[in-house]
Amino acid sequence: MSKVIVLLSGGLDSTTCASMAVKEYGAENVIALSIGYGQKHKIELECAKAVVERLNISKHIMKELPPIFEGSKSTLISSEKLDNPKLTYQELQAKEGVLDTYVPFRNGILLSIAAALALNEKAEVIFYGAHASDSRNWAYPDCTPEFNGAMANAMWVGTYMKVRLHVPLQYMTKTDVIRKGLELGAPYELTRSCYEADYIACGKCSTCIERINSFKEAGVTDPIAYQTGEKVQ
Amino acid sequence: MSKVIVLLSGGLDSTTCASMAVKEYGAENVIALSIGYGQKHKIELECAKAVVERLNISKHIMKELPPIFEGSKSTLISSEKLDNPKLTYQELQAKEGVLDTYVPFRNGILLSIAAALALNEKAEVIFYGAHASDSRNWAYPDCTPEFNGAMANAMWVGTYMKVRLHVPLQYMTKTDVIRKGLELGAPYELTRSCYEADYIACGKCSTCIERINSFKEAGVTDPIAYQTGEKVQ
Repeated sequence: MSKVIVLLSGGLDSTTCASMAVKEYGAENVIALSIGYGQKHKIELECAKAVVERLNISKHIMKELPPIFEGSKSTLISSEKLDNPKLTYQELQAKEGVLDTYVPFRNGILLSIAAALALNEKAEVIFYGAHASDSRNWAYPDCTPEFNGAMANAMWVGTYMKVRLHVPLQYMTKTDVIRKGLELGAPYELTRSCYEADYIACGKCSTCIERINSFKEAGVTDPIAYQTGEKVQ
Repeated sequence: MSKVIVLLSGGLDSTTCASMAVKEYGAENVIALSIGYGQKHKIELECAKAVVERLNISKHIMKELPPIFEGSKSTLISSEKLDNPKLTYQELQAKEGVLDTYVPFRNGILLSIAAALALNEKAEVIFYGAHASDSRNWAYPDCTPEFNGAMANAMWVGTYMKVRLHVPLQYMTKTDVIRKGLELGAPYELTRSCYEADYIACGKCSTCIERINSFKEAGVTDPIAYQTGEKVQ
């Protein structure tokens, strides 16, 4: 069986993706890759470690990027004092132009690094958890099927046709993703979606709101705690 | 006039590209980007500095990547003790499979970082010096028009349609590149193409041989010195 790399942030989407990779290729053939890029919510990398352990993933590669994004106005970046938006995802998606939480071409960089490491590790496929709620109305352009397709081509050609990009969630909403993950037994209790730095999810930032609403829509209980005391289901 | 970023290694191709960018956009609108990735021939970054100064380029951004390529067998990477090949470029191009000097998906990573910085710097175009002698027979797949086109799409889409990739040399041979650069007054005396670590170009590695042969073919004098005493023209 060939090896695969899964980009694992420690969030809900990439953990679902990791669970799919494990089911399809076997944990012994899955390598997780987590990358620090100056995000405020670095605690997600601890979640990634816990997910790797729980899923018996064979190897966990962690890399730290140099400060590429330091000039960025993205509210996700730690050097900035800007607040993360407290909009719902619908409100976020409805905004025109560049989202406050967009990190400049971040996913292009992460995927390129994954392609390089895939060659080193002799992995043939990269699993990437971009989904339809992130790409709707161009909210995050580096999650769109158009971006994914172009990157897949660049990665395939640029690696001597050795590495393929696999984006199994790209046409699923976050609610679909949760349903899929539950079916696979994805360890959502270990994940973290919040953009804030605290250990307990804030329950107020856009990604917390999206997670809470998606669990509600899926009709299941979100196993994590929120500072707001929000209890889903 | 909009701003542009040029990927500048300090070699002949990227210096030609920088000269084109300066002519087209004006030096005050050009930003150079040089990236250390663990290459043995780090001295090329000193050449990049000299080129920036000579061309009056407005800003020079230098970044150092974390050790992404440490597991790679590429002979360009400093942690490896492997020798660079001493083949001619024709021999190199004729080889099947992965070249010894190929650095895993390096150009995908460099271009992705350039796209991120372009957004921060409000630059609309990235100049990239890939050319036809590098992409012939898939020698370096991350220099091919197929790769460049796919990356251009990914960069355009993934930046909210704000950043374009410009690869003006992609259908030129190295000899064509030299002719173009001489026409523009590119400061080739400041450049460095050698893959070895020494200050004076070795004159024996594939890229030295290619450079020497291309200058001969162009019928002009290569202004740099070689350890072999090779004097072109």
